[in-house]
This record gives sequence, structure tokens and C-alpha cells, in this order.
Amino acid sequence: MAKSRFEYVRSFESFDACLLNSWIVVRLDGRNFHRFSDHHQFAKPNDDQALALMARCAKNVMKDFNDIILSYGQSDEFSFVFRRETEVFQRRSSKLLSTVVSLFTSSYVFFWSNHFSNTPLQYPPTFDGRIVLYPTDKNLRDYLSWRQADCHINNLHNTAYWKLVSEAGMSPNDAQTKLGKMLANDKNEMLFSQFNTNYNNIPELFRKGTVLVREPQQSQLKKHDELKKDDSKMNGDDQDTKVITNSDSLAIKDKQIFYKNKSTIINMLNTDIIGNKFWSERPYLLTSE
Amino acid sequence: MAKSRFEYVRSFESFDACLLNSWIVVRLDGRNFHRFSDHHQFAKPNDDQALALMARCAKNVMKDFNDIILSYGQSDEFSFVFRRETEVFQRRSSKLLSTVVSLFTSSYVFFWSNHFSNTPLQYPPTFDGRIVLYPTDKNLRDYLSWRQADCHINNLHNTAYWKLVSEAGMSPNDAQTKLGKMLANDKNEMLFSQFNTNYNNIPELFRKGTVLVREPQQSQLKKHDELKKDDSKMNGDDQDTKVITNSDSLAIKDKQIFYKNKSTIINMLNTDIIGNKFWSERPYLLTSE
Amino acid sequence: MAKSRFEYVRSFESFDACLLNSWIVVRLDGRNFHRFSDHHQFAKPNDDQALALMARCAKNVMKDFNDIILSYGQSDEFSFVFRRETEVFQRRSSKLLSTVVSLFTSSYVFFWSNHFSNTPLQYPPTFDGRIVLYPTDKNLRDYLSWRQADCHINNLHNTAYWKLVSEAGMSPNDAQTKLGKMLANDKNEMLFSQFNTNYNNIPELFRKGTVLVREPQQSQLKKHDELKKDDSKMNGDDQDTKVITNSDSLAIKDKQIFYKNKSTIINMLNTDIIGNKFWSERPYLLTSE
Amino acid sequence: MAKSRFEYVRSFESFDACLLNSWIVVRLDGRNFHRFSDHHQFAKPNDDQALALMARCAKNVMKDFNDIILSYGQSDEFSFVFRRETEVFQRRSSKLLSTVVSLFTSSYVFFWSNHFSNTPLQYPPTFDGRIVLYPTDKNLRDYLSWRQADCHINNLHNTAYWKLVSEAGMSPNDAQTKLGKMLANDKNEMLFSQFNTNYNNIPELFRKGTVLVREPQQSQLKKHDELKKDDSKMNGDDQDTKVITNSDSLAIKDKQIFYKNKSTIINMLNTDIIGNKFWSERPYLLTSE
Repeated sequence: MAKSRFEYVRSFESFDACLLNSWIVVRLDGRNFHRFSDHHQFAKPNDDQALALMARCAKNVMKDFNDIILSYGQSDEFSFVFRRETEVFQRRSSKLLSTVVSLFTSSYVFFWSNHFSNTPLQYPPTFDGRIVLYPTDKNLRDYLSWRQADCHINNLHNTAYWKLVSEAGMSPNDAQTKLGKMLANDKNEMLFSQFNTNYNNIPELFRKGTVLVREPQQSQLKKHDELKKDDSKMNGDDQDTKVITNSDSLAIKDKQIFYKNKSTIINMLNTDIIGNKFWSERPYLLTSE
Repeated sequence: MAKSRFEYVRSFESFDACLLNSWIVVRLDGRNFHRFSDHHQFAKPNDDQALALMARCAKNVMKDFNDIILSYGQSDEFSFVFRRETEVFQRRSSKLLSTVVSLFTSSYVFFWSNHFSNTPLQYPPTFDGRIVLYPTDKNLRDYLSWRQADCHINNLHNTAYWKLVSEAGMSPNDAQTKLGKMLANDKNEMLFSQFNTNYNNIPELFRKGTVLVREPQQSQLKKHDELKKDDSKMNGDDQDTKVITNSDSLAIKDKQIFYKNKSTIINMLNTDIIGNKFWSERPYLLTSE
Repeated sequence: MAKSRFEYVRSFESFDACLLNSWIVVRLDGRNFHRFSDHHQFAKPNDDQALALMARCAKNVMKDFNDIILSYGQSDEFSFVFRRETEVFQRRSSKLLSTVVSLFTSSYVFFWSNHFSNTPLQYPPTFDGRIVLYPTDKNLRDYLSWRQADCHINNLHNTAYWKLVSEAGMSPNDAQTKLGKMLANDKNEMLFSQFNTNYNNIPELFRKGTVLVREPQQSQLKKHDELKKDDSKMNGDDQDTKVITNSDSLAIKDKQIFYKNKSTIINMLNTDIIGNKFWSERPYLLTSE
Repeated sequence: MAKSRFEYVRSFESFDACLLNSWIVVRLDGRNFHRFSDHHQFAKPNDDQALALMARCAKNVMKDFNDIILSYGQSDEFSFVFRRETEVFQRRSSKLLSTVVSLFTSSYVFFWSNHFSNTPLQYPPTFDGRIVLYPTDKNLRDYLSWRQADCHINNLHNTAYWKLVSEAGMSPNDAQTKLGKMLANDKNEMLFSQFNTNYNNIPELFRKGTVLVREPQQSQLKKHDELKKDDSKMNGDDQDTKVITNSDSLAIKDKQIFYKNKSTIINMLNTDIIGNKFWSERPYLLTSE
């Protein structure tokens, strides 16, 4: 049995590296999760435990890959953002995709009983995934905004739908028909007038989804503050061709601290990531090229 | 909050369909399974339960995807062969890859305790995956032969290694050095003379790996036999440009029965798939284009 | 000025190799050739000189690339078939595509005056191109059949159209409308009854297009005949696992002679390539894997 | 002859669109141009006429594609930069590549006699091409800097080489060996001391290569100056979340004028494009995302 005789088939594999210096997003979605959530009696329109399990799995993925700077999830989906410069798996698309999806899925089954102690898992759930590249910071932010806007739109719709069905006793079909004709404002208004529900008082977990963001540890931030002072002094002598403002320079320094330091922490937030506040408070996340 | 404002980011997704009419192989491998097998006390050089669990997961994947005609596994890897004509997920590479890897991983954790009742799973295991295309039947068979030849080569090596370490008390380094200089025949000879082990008596599960093959049910085979008789009669009138021999024609009919019929069965074998026997007994698996 | 400072941008190039062991077809088409043919007074519906120039350019491409076994052209398009095993440019898609298109275009301008001695070229013509892969011989033949069927369909339509416009004095719009409602048979019938034209007597150049096929030289064919005799004798002892019939074995030998021998000739034909005759007469062109 | 029977082969074509919002560079290179330049007696180390012909061809390509904002050439190569947002050919890689290479090649043969009136073209020259994507403005500028740095390095080397061979009568091999050991400064010094040549006095055409840049017409610039004034007034009220400085805002306005207006002009320069000056004078070329 000659090894070399068949070995040639290896060369049929293609090298599917992602374009350099572009943001790599891996998004995974529950496959047939409508059925899955029925089988496991998820609360409607949102199940706290299911969302907590999703976040735990995402955190587990981020612990494994230091180059994921942020992940965002809602419902049965989660998006992972690898930093532009990542060299994980030589940026090979299939390796990145399969490993993230596998680790997330594995964690989902592994941690299931911690979150659903009274609901045994009935069959192995599946997630599918895709990889999308974004060349600029703006494109990346717009991607994340798209997902968070989607969370809001879906949640408003689902909240209204389940009020109509569970509280007003409307049939599913009738509820869908009624909502199909309504704009966002109408739904808000209906929730308030008919169900005495102020949509804005619904937990941010449901309205905003879950953000997991990698951040420098406090001890690092202190060091950074000292660098900041030095930085202000030295900046006048900058010889570089590009005029670097104070804030740019800090952002760059932050970034260096950030990625060289393996002992970052992962914070979980239910907050707006569409506006600028989240990003301007974390200059180490994005890069001006 | 305008939905359309961010919606444009969807168009950054690429449509990564696999070349039509080529064999699609998804191979997954355990990530860091050397460590994983240590942590869970897998028997060396082969662990029956671990192999049984792998096979069970593979079967679970094949149950979900009727278009997987065969899968082959050894150690911590498994390869899934989608038939040439499959239209599953529009042949999108990332969908096929991620779903297969996810379902396999999910099954691994889900079925773990059935196979390792006394060894709790300590952390979520991960598999990575890749997709490879093969244009011809010969290339596909050579791919599977490559994996089975690899199984044999590794198993012979590992069997010899663990004999040296566990029975002869050699240090791991010394065992590796010794084996590094030996050819396959030398290893066979050493096993026989020094450890009284006839390599050919080692279970085929270890020497050949595991083949899961989709086959028509018996009831279908009966119908097929009747078609066979009709076929012999009609063949003389065949008007087609291509001269179809009896056996070709049967292969084609078999195939039609095979894939149209959803109630196939999945058989598990530990047998040679390098030679012709396995394939000539199953004319419905391959196609002469 | 440091070379290395910018050198990193090279790594943004991707390696776009075509799948191994699949047929590579490069098809190029004239860009805006409707306008081009008007500006250069091409005869309608077919211009002999323009077709001869196309064929000459295609031949020039084939002279440069020994691995192109066949090319097929009609109207302002030409398809080039690289053999399955070609390693030209490491099978890189962009290199194959751009070089073939460039050499063809270059030849078109260079040889223009040989074919259009009284019509100066008014501006540089452009061709665009694409690469398509075909995994099986059948797919490749069907591709070529598709182009030749297309040639027939277009030529029948154009022949009828120009009869209506040039001979019957119909307006272009009226002619299109009339033909839009007719089937192939109707068009044939109209040509015969109204214009006394038997479509089958129209030159094969117009009805079948142009085939350029690489063939062994006569001297090689003689050697081959001798091998053939030896072959018949030895065939009984064939030890190979696959049963090789006489004709298979010859095909394989032919192929070896064919590609190892650089002094092949390129024949130009206007013949049917949809049926089996063309292919069975040239067993060295295709491969049973 | 049924059209539909073969039509299915079309679906083997893949849709190879370039990633959105990234810079698309098409670079073409003369194939075997060492031989070509010998056959056509190009002056060494640089041939004015050959470089002028290259520039003329590049300009012809830019006239055809309004979305090419800049091209850069040296020796027998030229790079074309399509703007980030281009939708030409739906960004299909093979279409962009093949059309640019074809039009350039076609122009080369077509315009040959205008530049080489006494040197008939002996055979059709060929160019090959590739497509590279750059996600950020910095990456794009570094790409162009890489090519211009390469121009300088090659030209210095070639200038020194031909002095040694033509003037000092050294053999080609000896000249290569001697230069292989010298740094840039040594070459400069040798040119000056041994050949009385100040490298910096060599024409910029040879040292810097050729830049073709698309620019707004003067009439447009006037309109733009008026907008500029309005702009200064309004800027204080800018409500946008991103702080837009005067120059940013102008850049954006410039760009709108630039691309909406089809009557741009193409200027030819032999100037430095590595430093900031070229770019800051043309704010409409690049984009801050």
C-alpha cells in the first residue's frame, strides 16, 4: 500500500484566505430554531434563559479567539468580528468558519443544562454560518447596526404579535394580518393604548440584543493613562508624514496595548451600538486604516 | 430607525456555490484532540467508545442529509461525500460546511454520555472542517483510498508505538526515534517477533476505519430485480447515441431508485474501500458521468 | 526609499488556480461587435473574411499553447479548451484568461489587413472573456454542443432575417416580429418557398462554425499503428485491476503520444461536433477520467 | 436540435464579483517583452517611443472606462485603478480583467505605427493581467508606491548596467555580477564618478514612470469654487455625527462633481505619487471611507 499513490488528492484543496486588512465577520444562525424553540418550550416572544445560553456560548468562542474583538447576538443568531489584521488560521475562510460554528454549537449543548435545568435537550441543535468581509470601519459598523436594527424591528413585531395572540386571544393568522399593515409607530401606539405596555420599558436585552466586547483590563488602562501623558508631550515632534492628532495617536497606542496583552476581559452589554457613543468610548476597537 | 439605511451590507456576502457536477467532500477533524483524548482517558492506541461515538455522529449527519451517499472516518476525523448532483443549500460551500460540522459537533456532545457513561465531558470539544471538490469518480475514490491508507499507516505506527511504550517500557522519545527509522514491514515484523502480535488480527475497525454507506432497502432491491428483467428485454431497442451495456443501464436505474426513494438505510462497515469489490457491489454509488 | 516598506501589498494578490483535473474553457466574445461590424461593412448575415480572421487568431493562440486541444468559434466568439491536466500558468485563472484574450486580440489587429485589405481598421476592437470549468467529458461535449447549436439557431434566424430585409424589402422591425413567431421548421420552409433557398446548402462554415483541432502528425500515426499491433498481443496479460478494452488502451496510448509530442498539427474543420463521429475518430481528445 | 438540451452548461459559470467598496486594481504586464524589445530594437535602458505607446494605450483604456480614476505605468507594465464604488460589469473580475487587457493590447497594435514608423511590428505582442483588491486608501497608495519604488530601483539598476555594458564595454555577466553587490548609493556614486552622470538629471519619465490621472475640467473647478464658498458658510451648522472639517467636506463635494460629470480630462504626469503632495492636491481621488 503506497502512501504516495493517493496523496495527490490533497492538491485539490483550495487555499481560501480572506482578503487581507478587511474585517472578517462570522455570523451563525440556528437552523430550524422555530421548531427547536417549540420543542423546548421557549418563552415567547423572548426567552431569557435561551438568550443567556447564546451569550455564554459566544463568550466561550471569544475566550478561545483573542482576535475576536466584539460579538453581537440576538434571537438565535450571533456575529463574531475578527480584527482586520488577524492571522488566525492564515485567515483561511473554511477554518475560521467551521471552528467558530463548531465551538459555539459544542458550547450550546455542553452548557444547556446550566440554563435549562428542567428542560432536557431533546435532540442535537444545529447552527449554520457564513463569512462576510467588510473593507472599511464604516461598513463594519453598518453591518452591526443592521443586525441591531433588525433586533429592534423583530422584537417590536414579536412583542405586538404575542400580545395580540396571548392576551387579546387573536388567532395567529389574524395577528399577522393586522401587524402586516402597521408601521413601527402604530405598533408602539397599540402596545401602549391596548396593552398598557411602554415598549421603551421592555428590557434592553430584548430591544438591543447582546454585545460582548473585549476590553483592556483596568491595570492596563492605568498604564495607558500614563502613556497618554507622555504622548501629549511628545506629539509636537512627530516626524511622520501623516499628521497625527492626539486622539489618533492614543487610539493607535490603545490598540497596541490591547492586542499584545493576552489578559483582556470580555464585557457583556445590552446597549446601543448604532450611535457613536459606544465606539468613541472604545477607541481601541476600530482603526482609521 | 430606517431598516434600509444599513440593509446594503447584505450585498457584501458572496455566493460561494461549489462547481456543478463535481463530488463535494466535507472533511472534519478534531481540534486539539490529542489534549482532548488525554483529558478523557481515551484508550491507546484506539478507543472503541470514542470511535463508536464518532460513527454515531456521522450517522446522525447522514440521516439529516439524504444526499450524503457515503462517509468515512478514522481516529478523530470524518469525511462526508455529497453526491455529484446535490442541490442542498444550492451547493453553497459555507452552508454545507458549517451545517455538517455543527450537526456533527452537536451530536458528539449530545451522545457523549451514551458512550462514556463514567467519564463526564470536561469541556466542549471542537471540530474544524474543509470542503474539497473532486471532478471524477476516480479522484473521489482516490480521496477515500488516501484516507483509508492513512488510517492503516497511522494505526500500524500507533500500535507499534504503544507496544514499545506500554509493554516494553520505552520512553516516548525513544519509541518515536526507533519507529522513525522503520518501514511498514519492519513494524509488522517487530510486532510479531517482539510482541507476539499479528497485525492482521487486529480488529478491522482499527485497521480499516469506519464506512457508513447509504443503501437501498431490501424491498427496493426486489423491485429493482424485476426492472432488471424488463431491462434485458428492452435493451436491444435502445436508440440512444451512447451504447449502453447491461451493467451501465442497471447502474443508472439503480441510481434512480436510490435517490428518489427517501427510505434508504445506512449501513456501517469496517471494510476495504480501496479495491474494486466494495464499489462494484454498489453500482448506485458512482456514476460513469 | 525602502523597497520592503511597500512590498507587503503583494500579499493581497490571491492565488486563483482552477480546480485540478477539470476541463478549462476560455471563451471570448467581441465587445460591441454589432457596432464594429457596421463600421467595417461586414457582409450580412455572415462575413467570410471576418470569420477567416477569427479562425486565424484562434490558430495563433493554439500555436502558443500546446495544451489547448480544441477551439470552436462562430460569429464574434471563440472558445478554447485546455486539456484537463494542463499545468500552464499553474492553472491560474487570471493568467490563462488574460493571456488568451490578449493574444487573440493582438492577432486580430495584427492580421486585420491580411483579410481586409481594402477596409482600414478604424479603431482598436475589444474582446472580453470568461473561464468556465467542466468536471466531466460529457459536460465539456455538452458545452461545445451548446455553442454549435447556438450557431445553427442564430444562423438560421439571421439568414431568414436578411432575406426578409434585403430581398423582400421588409423593415427590420417587421422582420423581427415575423420571425419571432416562427419555429425553426417554419423558417426553413420560408427560406425554401419564398426565397428558393435550401438552408442545408448554405456553407457549413456558416451553419456549423469553425473547429480547430490539434492532431498528431501523420508520422506519429504510423508509429501508433505499430503500437496498436503490439498492444493487441499484450492485452491478454493486462494485470491492472481495471479491465481495459482494446479501444481504451489505444486511447491512452494515443494521448501519451499526443501530448508528449510537441509537433502536432492544427486542423481546421467546419463539421458537426455534437454527434459522436467527430469524437470517436479522435480518441486522444477526451479521456475516460 | 433542441436548444434546451445543452443550455444547462451555462450554469457552470461562476459569478466572480469583486468585494464591494474595495479598490480594484488591474495590472497588466508584457509577456516575453525582453524578447519583444530585442526584436524591435528598443533603446536601452529606456525607449521613449515604447513608453509613449504604453501611455497612449493606457489613456485609451481610461477613455473607455470613466470609473478608472488613475493609472500608473513603467517599463512594460500598467496598473489601472477603478474607484471603490464602481459598478462596471457588476464588478465581475473576469469581465474587468479581460476587457482592460484586451483593449490595451488592441490599442498597442493599432497605435504601434504612430510611434514606431520605421519599425514594422513583427508579431502580435501579448500582455497578461491580474486583479488585486485593496480595502483601504492606505493600501491602495502603498500599492502605487510599491510600483513607483520598483520603477526607481529598476531604472537605477538598468541605467548603471547599460553604462557598464555600452560605454565601459563590460560583458553582460560581469556587469550583473558587479551590480549585484552594490547598494543604491553605490550605483548613484558609480554613475557620477565613472560615467559623469547625475542620476537625478535623468528624465522623470524614466525615474518616476507615467501617471495618468482623471481630473475635473476647469469649468467644473470654477463651479466647485463657488460651492466652496457656500460650504464654508454652512459648515458651522453641520448636524452630522461625524465632525467634518472643511477639507473633508470639500473632498466629498469634489467627488460628487467628479464622477457625475462625464466630461473629465485625463492628465499625464511624470511625478512622485509616493509622497502626500500629489494626493492632497487631488482630494477627489481618495475617500475617507
